[in-house]
Amino acid sequence: MSTTTTIERPIISAEELLTAWQGHRNLTRKVIEAFPEKDMFTFSVGGMRPFADLIKEIITVSAVGLKQIVTGVITPFEDAMPQIKEKADLLQAWDEASEQINVYFPQISAEKFHEDINLFGEYKFPAIENIQYFIDNEIHHRAQAYVYLRALGIEPPFFWDRY
Amino acid sequence: MSTTTTIERPIISAEELLTAWQGHRNLTRKVIEAFPEKDMFTFSVGGMRPFADLIKEIITVSAVGLKQIVTGVITPFEDAMPQIKEKADLLQAWDEASEQINVYFPQISAEKFHEDINLFGEYKFPAIENIQYFIDNEIHHRAQAYVYLRALGIEPPFFWDRY
Repeated sequence: MSTTTTIERPIISAEELLTAWQGHRNLTRKVIEAFPEKDMFTFSVGGMRPFADLIKEIITVSAVGLKQIVTGVITPFEDAMPQIKEKADLLQAWDEASEQINVYFPQISAEKFHEDINLFGEYKFPAIENIQYFIDNEIHHRAQAYVYLRALGIEPPFFWDRY
Repeated sequence: MSTTTTIERPIISAEELLTAWQGHRNLTRKVIEAFPEKDMFTFSVGGMRPFADLIKEIITVSAVGLKQIVTGVITPFEDAMPQIKEKADLLQAWDEASEQINVYFPQISAEKFHEDINLFGEYKFPAIENIQYFIDNEIHHRAQAYVYLRALGIEPPFFWDRY
């Protein structure tokens, strides 16, 4: 069964995943900076949510979700959504969430990464799958903001600019 | 240095990454299916590329890129882009690429995952980082297609529907 052994070997470490995640967060922060404040809370394409609402979701999903994984204290998603109405406050909440991620992520034990957690009382998956979902969800909504920016005539940051 | 040890431990196996990737590919396939053929090759928001061009890029980046990692034979990106003009052919090329990924991915040795490869003669990074980039790039462009679909009045598949 050498093929199976080959496939099943570990290839991404916790540290590498955190680095990749924070790289994505750096890029998302550049997208927030590039977005005009007047459009951030109102502009939409096809009836979708404004960019600020997407960012508030990402802040909640990531930082609050990670805290739930570490502490095991589960609260509903809606209760955790920040009330933010200005661009500067959105950037500050973003930076605070990035710091919290750096604090909480290293506290997750090897066992806990592969244990189920019922995140926000709704999403029961192994912690590692929930975390991968956080990152995928951020890439997904940020990409939608790329289209919003293009529709507004603004060039978004390069996709590879994670620094 | 127990904290460092904790962070550096491996948490994602090659098999888990392949499963996550093919899950994303299943969802992207649903987005291709949902897209009207007449709009697929022409519709744009904000001057961006039509959806078919994004899909052709993903097919090239993923299947051809992975083959380069396995074989070490490097060819330019442009030479690898498929010439496709119909939705049925796009779906067929997508499925063939998904099969090729299942063939090539298990052939990557543990050492090779962390060796640099100059993909398409342009992107010199460790193989694992190139592969993570493939997946991130797919999520990114698929999310843009979600906005296109919404702008066309079509409801996209659920983001979590990877089956």
